[in-house]
Amino acid sequence: MATDAPTAINLAEKLASFAEHWSPKIVGTFNGHDIMVVKVKGEFVWHSHPDTDDFFLVLDGRLTIQTEHGDVELGPGELFVVPQGVQHRPVAAEEAHILLIEPHGTPNTGDPATAVAKPRI
Amino acid sequence: MATDAPTAINLAEKLASFAEHWSPKIVGTFNGHDIMVVKVKGEFVWHSHPDTDDFFLVLDGRLTIQTEHGDVELGPGELFVVPQGVQHRPVAAEEAHILLIEPHGTPNTGDPATAVAKPRI
Repeated sequence: MATDAPTAINLAEKLASFAEHWSPKIVGTFNGHDIMVVKVKGEFVWHSHPDTDDFFLVLDGRLTIQTEHGDVELGPGELFVVPQGVQHRPVAAEEAHILLIEPHGTPNTGDPATAVAKPRI
Repeated sequence: MATDAPTAINLAEKLASFAEHWSPKIVGTFNGHDIMVVKVKGEFVWHSHPDTDDFFLVLDGRLTIQTEHGDVELGPGELFVVPQGVQHRPVAAEEAHILLIEPHGTPNTGDPATAVAKPRI
């Protein structure tokens, strides 16, 4: 098989390859966006993204996305897009696994100074 | 609850609301893209999208994406992005349920003349 043969991206396998929370890993790219998986538990920080919407799809567990307009409760197979500029905070009582899509280079906290690096796995 | 309160998008509920194959339904929007669910069975047509990558995430069932560079086999929780301009044909022996993301207005066949409308559900 050629090294550039097209290959499926198995999200469960990608998620099994790391343990840390709130540290998105890039698993693919799409139209200038990073496709990422992340494990979350506890409370993130309130933040917004001035230049982009923020895509969340829950793969496993439960996630609350608190927003300035109200809270959204998500379980497996449920998604929510936080509109550009809307203040939000993801919260998970227990570990949850999430698929994220954001433009390449988007800081996860909305602020480059406090953002974590996003390695490709 | 205000009518514009943020609400989760439940993909299984959306998929349960229609039966036809190869007819993507818009369930949300993200950075100028449509987020869609589609039921597929059988063979689609060979096509490419000259201006966009093409995002496929299998939610249920199995999908083969034949491409000019080789075939990709996808099961639940597996995704593949067909790069811009690459000829491809989705094929499913049995019904499969897929999450698609494409720029708003992208014809599903790559050709406006043969594309189906994409209603919002």
